[in-house]
Parts: sequence; structure tokens; C-alpha cells
Amino acid sequence: MPFGSKDKAYNNSRSMAYLTAEQALADYAVLLTDLKRNLSSESSPVVLFGGSYGGMLAAWMRLKYPHIAVGALASSAPILQFEDIVPDTIFYDLVSNDFKRESLSCFQTIKDSWKELDEQGNGQDGLLKLSKTFHLCQTLNTTGALSDWLSSAYSYLAMVDYPMPSEFLMPLPANPIKEVCRNIDKQPEGSSILERIYAGVNIYYNYTGTVDCFDLDDDPHGMGGWDWQACTEMVMPMSSSEGLSMFLPDEFDYALYADDCVKNFGVRPRPRWISTEFGGHNISSVLEKFGSNIIFFNGLLDPWSGGGVLKNISESVVAIVAPLGAHHIDLRPATKEDPDWLVSLRESELEIISGWLSDHYGARGGALFQRATNKDSAAS
Amino acid sequence: MPFGSKDKAYNNSRSMAYLTAEQALADYAVLLTDLKRNLSSESSPVVLFGGSYGGMLAAWMRLKYPHIAVGALASSAPILQFEDIVPDTIFYDLVSNDFKRESLSCFQTIKDSWKELDEQGNGQDGLLKLSKTFHLCQTLNTTGALSDWLSSAYSYLAMVDYPMPSEFLMPLPANPIKEVCRNIDKQPEGSSILERIYAGVNIYYNYTGTVDCFDLDDDPHGMGGWDWQACTEMVMPMSSSEGLSMFLPDEFDYALYADDCVKNFGVRPRPRWISTEFGGHNISSVLEKFGSNIIFFNGLLDPWSGGGVLKNISESVVAIVAPLGAHHIDLRPATKEDPDWLVSLRESELEIISGWLSDHYGARGGALFQRATNKDSAAS
Repeated sequence: MPFGSKDKAYNNSRSMAYLTAEQALADYAVLLTDLKRNLSSESSPVVLFGGSYGGMLAAWMRLKYPHIAVGALASSAPILQFEDIVPDTIFYDLVSNDFKRESLSCFQTIKDSWKELDEQGNGQDGLLKLSKTFHLCQTLNTTGALSDWLSSAYSYLAMVDYPMPSEFLMPLPANPIKEVCRNIDKQPEGSSILERIYAGVNIYYNYTGTVDCFDLDDDPHGMGGWDWQACTEMVMPMSSSEGLSMFLPDEFDYALYADDCVKNFGVRPRPRWISTEFGGHNISSVLEKFGSNIIFFNGLLDPWSGGGVLKNISESVVAIVAPLGAHHIDLRPATKEDPDWLVSLRESELEIISGWLSDHYGARGGALFQRATNKDSAAS
Repeated sequence: MPFGSKDKAYNNSRSMAYLTAEQALADYAVLLTDLKRNLSSESSPVVLFGGSYGGMLAAWMRLKYPHIAVGALASSAPILQFEDIVPDTIFYDLVSNDFKRESLSCFQTIKDSWKELDEQGNGQDGLLKLSKTFHLCQTLNTTGALSDWLSSAYSYLAMVDYPMPSEFLMPLPANPIKEVCRNIDKQPEGSSILERIYAGVNIYYNYTGTVDCFDLDDDPHGMGGWDWQACTEMVMPMSSSEGLSMFLPDEFDYALYADDCVKNFGVRPRPRWISTEFGGHNISSVLEKFGSNIIFFNGLLDPWSGGGVLKNISESVVAIVAPLGAHHIDLRPATKEDPDWLVSLRESELEIISGWLSDHYGARGGALFQRATNKDSAAS
């Protein structure tokens, strides 16, 4: 942690300014080079592994520092989720699909809940009532804060919709969306929409059952750093569509977004920087012509797969797609409950990576041989 | 010029910190992308041209931003002049060779002059006498300052040893080293070594004959920015060898160099950063495996050619070498005095670059055709 502590590093924009993808890649480059020198293993090949933002870094690092690493496994890396490269509604549409596939009534209850929430919030003592229904620690100032809290839960649930119990963002059962929807659907007849919704999100925010009340301002996933990055270079436009989504229709408003960044961090974003630095609009051609040895893994349940590379680009830039996988499930620890498709796709990844290493040692072996030969002829 | 003016930009290390190769490349990336958008020519291919440091930037930019430019002409780009990639004596050996090939006695006079200079400087009123012999505006404090001034002249002369009159660094005649050596050699018998040396460098520092006295602290080539870069990332170790060089034997002392940087700029260099960022120790393999469409031009009279790429690396990363060329002579304006080899090598460069453009339009034409076909089938 630079600047002595996390508190100090995150204290102001002068130190936060170092929190960029480019700086991260440069740090990795120096770390790997120094580490290999210190370990006297300068000729050892390095393979990059990363999931989510880390997956973007892995792919970008292979593009920018091919001399440092022989290949990259970029898991659930939404490198296309910038500008207008993919439709800006795709993320929330995918989240919505995950709920719809489990239960149409669950999907519909969530879709109907926003209006209900708004009406109840605007009624007599509405915010107080809502705060009680949802067991909030503090009374709401706006319904918006509650909507955001609910939306976040749905999005995170879609990301971690794994077929086995997990504790990535929160302790959760296997197939958590199925559980959430079961809870929403199974409430006794006559239950209100919002009672159902509460029963649903309770699975996400309180699966262990130990939470007395919910604090909406809590930042359990430590997203402060990401918020800064989203306000500088990682501008990912996201809207929700009227038709396909269960979320409130909402169009991404860049001007408003940028003003919020100025207000919160004193910076104005550079929404086009990422595609300038790493390529974007023609990313297939960048990856095809200039990239090699990259695996893009995506699980189609993961809403981030909408901004991912889902098709093979070339012989050595390949896409592995798991229709039933969620956010970087391939990089999670192996468990006994792992379904066959997961075991088998991990094997495919290992096989591809082994190929990179063979290529590397093959090529290097050749060079060593040549050098030895030259030496001999110089001596003779 | 950022920060309002050159004076302000160069005023302290906080603004100087932006003077890096990486920042320059990022600036170019943003400039080119914005320029093309503003001119509604987003699909126009860009070719990078640069000489010397600019040549390094051109080559590095093609490696790091292949999506921004289709190719690069990197003229006299010493991308190997870092760490121990090339022998650290090569620069001054090449300068010395340029003098030796014109006149062995000239070479020897220069080689003998350092001892002479030192002895005279240490004698009674030595520094005053030296200052008079060399028409200096101020009396010398050390002989070292005079040695540096002379060494600089020889190095610059080797860089600009063009076969036609030029005004790149200074107004100079054609084949300036020949002229310098002629002046050194032709002094009347009995002339002292230092009188000969003065007659020689007078060609470089005062070819127009308008200079009354010489100011050693003058910075006619605006090297202040380069000095900063040499103290941060552009650490190019240079020694001069006892055997081959006409310079005083001198071994590069990194510790001393780094301490001077701390003293002068308050920064400690990162001598390994350039090879970490752009590759270096295995640069041929980087260029071969990950580079394409780069021409490395070098003239062998140019001492910077010692750190240049002098051999073809692949079909599209090629070296053009002019045995009689000096520093980025290919990029100088065409003149009527241009020798045939220069005319012809410029033609070769143009032909190669035309090939890049054809490739680009060929590939793009294909993609456009495909898109049109897809549209048709979608409509039908």
C-alpha cells in the first residue's frame, strides 16, 4: 500500500491519481522484473492471471508488455464495456435475464417493486415505513438510496450466481438467485410486493442471519477505489431498458455522471481514454493483429460477460464461454461440488497455458542451442 | 507547452515529472485520436516519423499503440543504448572512428590534447592562458569544463557529419569533420597542439565567424529537457576506452551519475525502467514477435548508430543502414547535393511505407466489403 496506509493513499486526489490501470501495469512490470532478478530466474516465463478488473489488467498487460509475460488468462474481463462498443443496456439486461430464467413471477415482482417503493415512499410517513419494512439502521432520506441498495444486490447476485456455496462478496448458498426468487415467490398469499422483495434481498445481505439492521452507507466490498477509477478512466456507460430489464428504465447521462465525479472527487472523467490507450472500437483487430496467448473466459450468467470477448479472435487469442458460469468462476478454488463443465473448462485452460510454456521453452531452447553453436565456431 | 510557458514547465520537478517518453506517447495517442475525430477521418491510417529521441518514440509507439498507427520510421533511434545491451564504449569509439577515417594525425592530435590541456591548466596562470587560447568569454575555473566543451563538439560533429552544408545543430560546411581535421592538420609547423585544437573546434562553434568569444555555459541546443530525462529514465551509460577512442579514458560511474542527478534535479534515476517498459535485453525477440511495420534507419557515421537496430528483424521490421550517413540524414530536407545513396534510400523508405498503407487499405477494404454483405443478408 503506497503512501504508508490505505487511509493516507485514499485521502486525496494527489495520491489517488496513482490509482490507474497504466500505473498498475507498470507496477507489475517492475515487480515481475525485480522479482525474477532477485530469484535468479530471469529466464522463467510468467503467465498473468486476473479476474474482473484484474482480468482487464491481465489482457492489457499481455498487449502492452509481451516481453514481460508469455500469456494471460483474462477471466470475466469486460474490456468492451466502454463508450458505445457494446449496447449500454446489456449489463442490466443480463442481470434481469438471470432472474427471469429462475422465475418469471420473481422477475415481475422485482420489476413492479420500483413503482410500489416510490408510492410508499411518497405517502404519509412513507420513508419511515420503508425503513422499517427493510430493517434499515437509519431512517431513509430518499427512496433512491433504497432502490440503489436493492439494485446493487441484484447485480451482485448475478455476478456470484455460482452453482456451489461461496463467500466471494457475501456468504451465499449455491445458486443464490434461485434462492432469492424462491423466497420472493414463496411468501404467503396476500404478502405485499415489498415484503416479498425484503424476503428476497435478505438472502443476499443476511444469509448468515446475524444482521440486526442494514446500513445502506456501508461499503462492504471496498468500492471506494473503484468509484475513483470509474470517475477517471473506467467510465462504463450503463442504462436500463424499458423492455428487457427488471430495473427502472434509466438512460446513462454522461453530463450528470461527470458532474458527480467533480463533486465527489474533484476530477472530470476521460471517457475515451481507455480505448485510446488499449484499443477498443476495433478491438478484435487489435487482438488479432497484435495480441497472442490470451484466454478470455466468460460465464454467461455474469452480467459483465456483456462487455467481454466471447468469440475466438485468432489461434492464440481464444474465448472460453461457460453458459452456466458466473463472474470468474474458473478462478475460484476447486470444490467437490464443481460441475463437470467447470472441471473440464479449467482443464482446457491449463492445456492452453501449457502450450504457451512449451512454445516458450521450445523457442528459447532453440536460441540457447544457436548461441552455443556460435560460441563453438568462434572458438574453433 | 504545458503549464503556460517553457519557463514554468521547466521550473520544478513537479511539472518536469510529465517529461517522460510514456507521457509523450500518451499525448500523441490522444492528439492523433482527437485530430482524426475532429477531421472526420477516423479511418485514415497514421504513419509515425521520428529521428533520434523522436525515433525511439516512433518505434516504441508502434510497439505500444499499434491500433493508433500502422507503422513507424524510426530514424537514428538508439533504443539499445541502455544498461549493458551494447558496449558502453561504443558511442565514443564511433565518434573517434569518424575522425580517424578523415585523418590519423587529426585523431592523434585530439587524443594527445587532453594531457596537454591538463598540464597547461595546472601551470602558472594556466586557466587564464587556456581561456585566452580558446577565446572564452569567462576565465575557466577548471580544465574539465573546457574538456567537456571540446568533447561535445567532437560528438556533435560526428552526429552531423553530413555530405552537404547543414544547419541542424550549428551552421556547418559539408563533411564538417573533414574540415575540422583539415584545420587541425594544416596549422603551420610549430603550432602547439592546443592551437590546432582551437583551429579545429572553431569550425564547429564559429563557422560563420561571427562569434567574439565562447560561453561554455551556453545551452544552444536546449538540452535542459534532455538532461532531466537522462536523470530519470534515459540513463545511457557511456565510457571511453583507452584503446580505440581519442577521448580521455573514462569509465561510466553510475553512483556518481545518480548523485549528480539528485544534486541537479532532486531525482534519482531509474536506470532499468526503459527496458522494463519497452523491452531491451531481448529486444530482437520483442521486435520480431510483437512488432511489425517499423523501419530502423541508421547512418554508420552517427555515433548513435551504436545503440541502433542495424539488422533486419523480420519481414516487416527492417533495418536500413547507410555506411556514409550521419544522424537521421534520411529525415533532412532533400537538397540538390544529396548523394545517390541518400536519394535511393529515401525511395526505399517510401516504398516500404507505401506497402504498409496498401496493406492497411487492403485489409480495411475487405472488412468493409464483409460488413456490406452482412447488412444485405440481414435485410433479405
